[in-house]
Amino acid sequence: MAKQIRDPGIGEKFNARTKRLMNKDGTFNVRSKGIALKRIHPFQYLVNVSWAKFALILLLAFTTINLIYATIYFSLGSAGLKTTIDMSPISHFWQCVFFSLNTLTTVGFGNFCPSGYKANIVAGLEAMTGLLGFAFATGLLYGRFSRPSSKIGYSENALIAPYNDGSALMIRLVNLRNSIMTDVDVDITFTYEERIGNQYMRRFYQLPLERNEVNYLPLTWTLVHPIDENSPFYGKTHEELKEIDSELMINLKGHDEGFGEQVHSRTSYLMDDVIWGARYIPSFHVDDAGIVLLDFEKLSAYEKVNLDREPVLLNLV
Amino acid sequence: MAKQIRDPGIGEKFNARTKRLMNKDGTFNVRSKGIALKRIHPFQYLVNVSWAKFALILLLAFTTINLIYATIYFSLGSAGLKTTIDMSPISHFWQCVFFSLNTLTTVGFGNFCPSGYKANIVAGLEAMTGLLGFAFATGLLYGRFSRPSSKIGYSENALIAPYNDGSALMIRLVNLRNSIMTDVDVDITFTYEERIGNQYMRRFYQLPLERNEVNYLPLTWTLVHPIDENSPFYGKTHEELKEIDSELMINLKGHDEGFGEQVHSRTSYLMDDVIWGARYIPSFHVDDAGIVLLDFEKLSAYEKVNLDREPVLLNLV
Amino acid sequence: MAKQIRDPGIGEKFNARTKRLMNKDGTFNVRSKGIALKRIHPFQYLVNVSWAKFALILLLAFTTINLIYATIYFSLGSAGLKTTIDMSPISHFWQCVFFSLNTLTTVGFGNFCPSGYKANIVAGLEAMTGLLGFAFATGLLYGRFSRPSSKIGYSENALIAPYNDGSALMIRLVNLRNSIMTDVDVDITFTYEERIGNQYMRRFYQLPLERNEVNYLPLTWTLVHPIDENSPFYGKTHEELKEIDSELMINLKGHDEGFGEQVHSRTSYLMDDVIWGARYIPSFHVDDAGIVLLDFEKLSAYEKVNLDREPVLLNLV
Amino acid sequence: MAKQIRDPGIGEKFNARTKRLMNKDGTFNVRSKGIALKRIHPFQYLVNVSWAKFALILLLAFTTINLIYATIYFSLGSAGLKTTIDMSPISHFWQCVFFSLNTLTTVGFGNFCPSGYKANIVAGLEAMTGLLGFAFATGLLYGRFSRPSSKIGYSENALIAPYNDGSALMIRLVNLRNSIMTDVDVDITFTYEERIGNQYMRRFYQLPLERNEVNYLPLTWTLVHPIDENSPFYGKTHEELKEIDSELMINLKGHDEGFGEQVHSRTSYLMDDVIWGARYIPSFHVDDAGIVLLDFEKLSAYEKVNLDREPVLLNLV
Repeated sequence: MAKQIRDPGIGEKFNARTKRLMNKDGTFNVRSKGIALKRIHPFQYLVNVSWAKFALILLLAFTTINLIYATIYFSLGSAGLKTTIDMSPISHFWQCVFFSLNTLTTVGFGNFCPSGYKANIVAGLEAMTGLLGFAFATGLLYGRFSRPSSKIGYSENALIAPYNDGSALMIRLVNLRNSIMTDVDVDITFTYEERIGNQYMRRFYQLPLERNEVNYLPLTWTLVHPIDENSPFYGKTHEELKEIDSELMINLKGHDEGFGEQVHSRTSYLMDDVIWGARYIPSFHVDDAGIVLLDFEKLSAYEKVNLDREPVLLNLV
Repeated sequence: MAKQIRDPGIGEKFNARTKRLMNKDGTFNVRSKGIALKRIHPFQYLVNVSWAKFALILLLAFTTINLIYATIYFSLGSAGLKTTIDMSPISHFWQCVFFSLNTLTTVGFGNFCPSGYKANIVAGLEAMTGLLGFAFATGLLYGRFSRPSSKIGYSENALIAPYNDGSALMIRLVNLRNSIMTDVDVDITFTYEERIGNQYMRRFYQLPLERNEVNYLPLTWTLVHPIDENSPFYGKTHEELKEIDSELMINLKGHDEGFGEQVHSRTSYLMDDVIWGARYIPSFHVDDAGIVLLDFEKLSAYEKVNLDREPVLLNLV
Repeated sequence: MAKQIRDPGIGEKFNARTKRLMNKDGTFNVRSKGIALKRIHPFQYLVNVSWAKFALILLLAFTTINLIYATIYFSLGSAGLKTTIDMSPISHFWQCVFFSLNTLTTVGFGNFCPSGYKANIVAGLEAMTGLLGFAFATGLLYGRFSRPSSKIGYSENALIAPYNDGSALMIRLVNLRNSIMTDVDVDITFTYEERIGNQYMRRFYQLPLERNEVNYLPLTWTLVHPIDENSPFYGKTHEELKEIDSELMINLKGHDEGFGEQVHSRTSYLMDDVIWGARYIPSFHVDDAGIVLLDFEKLSAYEKVNLDREPVLLNLV
Repeated sequence: MAKQIRDPGIGEKFNARTKRLMNKDGTFNVRSKGIALKRIHPFQYLVNVSWAKFALILLLAFTTINLIYATIYFSLGSAGLKTTIDMSPISHFWQCVFFSLNTLTTVGFGNFCPSGYKANIVAGLEAMTGLLGFAFATGLLYGRFSRPSSKIGYSENALIAPYNDGSALMIRLVNLRNSIMTDVDVDITFTYEERIGNQYMRRFYQLPLERNEVNYLPLTWTLVHPIDENSPFYGKTHEELKEIDSELMINLKGHDEGFGEQVHSRTSYLMDDVIWGARYIPSFHVDDAGIVLLDFEKLSAYEKVNLDREPVLLNLV
């Protein structure tokens, strides 16, 4: 019989049936109650938020700071601000806004100048705020941009394909980036739910793979889990596996030479994503010059094949 | 008998009874004599100091630099500084301060301009100082902000809870951040003090855990040390363990996906923090949509239970 | 017989004869079809592009931004821009370009000033763009400059040299940088192509080395693969190895103390790069002061020697 | 007999007697011939050069750039530069220098303004150069400042101290920084030179230590190599070891929590640094409050003791 492993930290005992544990994008189906806001580290938030939201946050932050300083200049009265050129069409408040903008960005055209002790000191503070604030924003901008990330393409479906005398579970993946990945390591955790009284127990299995690491990943790589007596798939039909909320969780680690750092990727397959009796169509071929040509469009391409006898159980007899 | 390990580097032989070795926040109860100031690396200091102190240090540093340059301009006499607008209410020294501020922040409104060879050269130097200084301050600001850190919540108390036929030491923890932690690894070191002549010997044991690593940490994780004949807790009463200055030191490592780096956490429990005969109340449940709901408020929640027979010793007979 | 290993991820089954799998510079002979553009991460591109192209991209980006803003100012008419000094020889459009330049770089001389609501707001936006843009460009500049990289020199030829009673494959390498490398690790993969029907199968062997790691790399290091019955070279002639498209792929990892990070290096040798019957001339000697003198010019220097009997096969009898 | 290890990469066969292989500061006694200049990576140079030299390089670089641009403005004639205030005492060339300074630092007071097409374009380029250059310099400044480094104090002398029934080689070390180091790992390589014909062979031994890692390093740590039949010191006198150019090379790695990164440290001891018959005076004691007090001044402190019988050989009979 297949060897069960410990819960990988996702939880074992539940009071009710759970949705898929891991989503397609590698996140978990857990929500939290209680200290929601305090859970967010501002750096992590600002680095992970979408680019559109990030731009909005920046604009709002700088506009707010600008208006705060503008209000201070305004409160100092018209004596606090002198103009060297004619500013007749612009009201005093807007003059304060524009002067504040000149100061915050340290552009200091000189069309507006601070006048008197207070205005000069406030302008000094604002210029400091601007220098620190903009450089900080740029740090974040660059941090977001240079953040190591992987972009692994997984075939849309997992396949139960012919393999030696029997069959095997196969999942094909590729590095969608043009950087070279090295020392790539994958594991597949299989989980299903078992009802015991009014509790639901999650069972977990680490699927043995034909190979679970490659040195380089310039081409597609097909993960192969042979379905033999050591497999929890052994002797199960597609329907049986669906009924017990089966799920395959993929976890990949590798060194990305483009970033010079370790990157991670996760995804999961439900039984609806698994095709019984199919095999992948080759995704690369050698051209006349002896160069290997990889076709990304074919990552998920498969053809139906007869597994001879059904269900999988019989394959292994 | 339980297997003793080597001193984890904290010291074995002492001339007197020591306070707890590790504090709740993971620091050690060691003070140093001799080269105190030289021990501080300025980067480490500026990155670890509180935000309030950091802001104060920045303000002081820039004010000081500003005043030094202001004094230099002042010493050049009134010929060193020309104003393009009327500055009548402001004394010459303060004009120098404001000009210096304009230059240090490179805002350069133009209401003040350097005049003559010396003032122009000094102003050039000050602008360089400002550029390097502010960008350096921002580096620190961003370094502080983006610094990988963990925020692990540990249950307020460790419990001696029923476990199989006997009992076990249990400690519950959770990732208080909303980032995903992976490959989390924990060890618990148990230490107590033994008097030999007029020396105090610290003994150390690495407590065997039911499991000491999880792949993911989206939920709470309960560390379980079974109290059997391999445990240094075996056959000891709560009082006996208190008398010998027992202490549990927790050491956690994991990969934080929000930062993309390894983070660490440490804490320690004294025997006063251990509840004899209690078990944790579940901290999560599945809602109607099949989503797991985690309640942080319940991290430390426990209920008293009867360990049947006391002390622990009898549990294991 | 020599022990075959798994495909290191480069591909095993091909429809035709392939060119060398790995190029001299460590890249792979793979081209991709389909999502070419989306494969490029902009950070990886900008960090890896040549310095000349990088400078061009920066200049183009800033010129474009400058012209866009200049056009906006121009569209606001001559009322949008005031000059404090006589600008008679410069046309209005170019005045807008120069004002835009003053604003984008936040230099703000004050010879041009924005006038009216619109021009002031646009100038504020441009100054922000400039601050963010230039700091971002600098982040990239510094990121490129500080990027950890290795510069390992490999001898031009691999040698089949006398070794003990027989012979060995030898490759000499050196750290061309003056930083100290520690914990250096090397493996050599040997591959050749076998025709089966109309398919070409790549075979892979990890060559056992006399030693595959050193603690420090201040001198040259000669990799030695003894050609005995465990070697896939055993009993093969130079010609035979050429015919089956043999290739040696070298993979090196080490810690570079200058960067404080792990660096990688790869290269490959074809059979045309291998000299049968030669040995390396020593690359260092001790001078009168007892200092070891390393001569980089001699890295690839070898002298022909008689392997006594040919082919290699007989060496090992 | 003691077990010999492979050359750790420092070289095995020499044509003459060598000086110590590793210096006190962890560098190697190797000089290179040939591609000296190309060996230096500019980033590594600028990050490792002394602060004084670094400041000089910055100042020279900016002065040079400033003068180059000043010369360009000067070559454009007096029409290229307009002043808004009276600059009578300053010659035209120096006006160009000061304008160039205003532009390079983007301070742009407005006392000087570019005039005409050429001057405006050149000023735009200079402002760009300034922004990129200063931010780049700051990157280096911050990179130098935040660079992870260790500051391990090693006792001035290694000791041959009494240990159990015999003796042991002891070396005491401490983290001189006030940051916490964790997972600290040490190895000691012992090497001596043997004359064979007119060649000198270096022999290397990894000394077995009582313990070679600690979890934390808040106190001093004494490395202990027991001198028994597994030790290359076994049966050797101090004089014998001196004659064969014996050397002890220490290599330390650990995680520094202040930097959040792995740090390294190396040093070496010659036989002249080893005291035969001495033991370390304790470097810490517990005060009345139960706090451990560590005295750095005592790191190297030892007292002479009788090893009973001399030489070491007899200790072990």
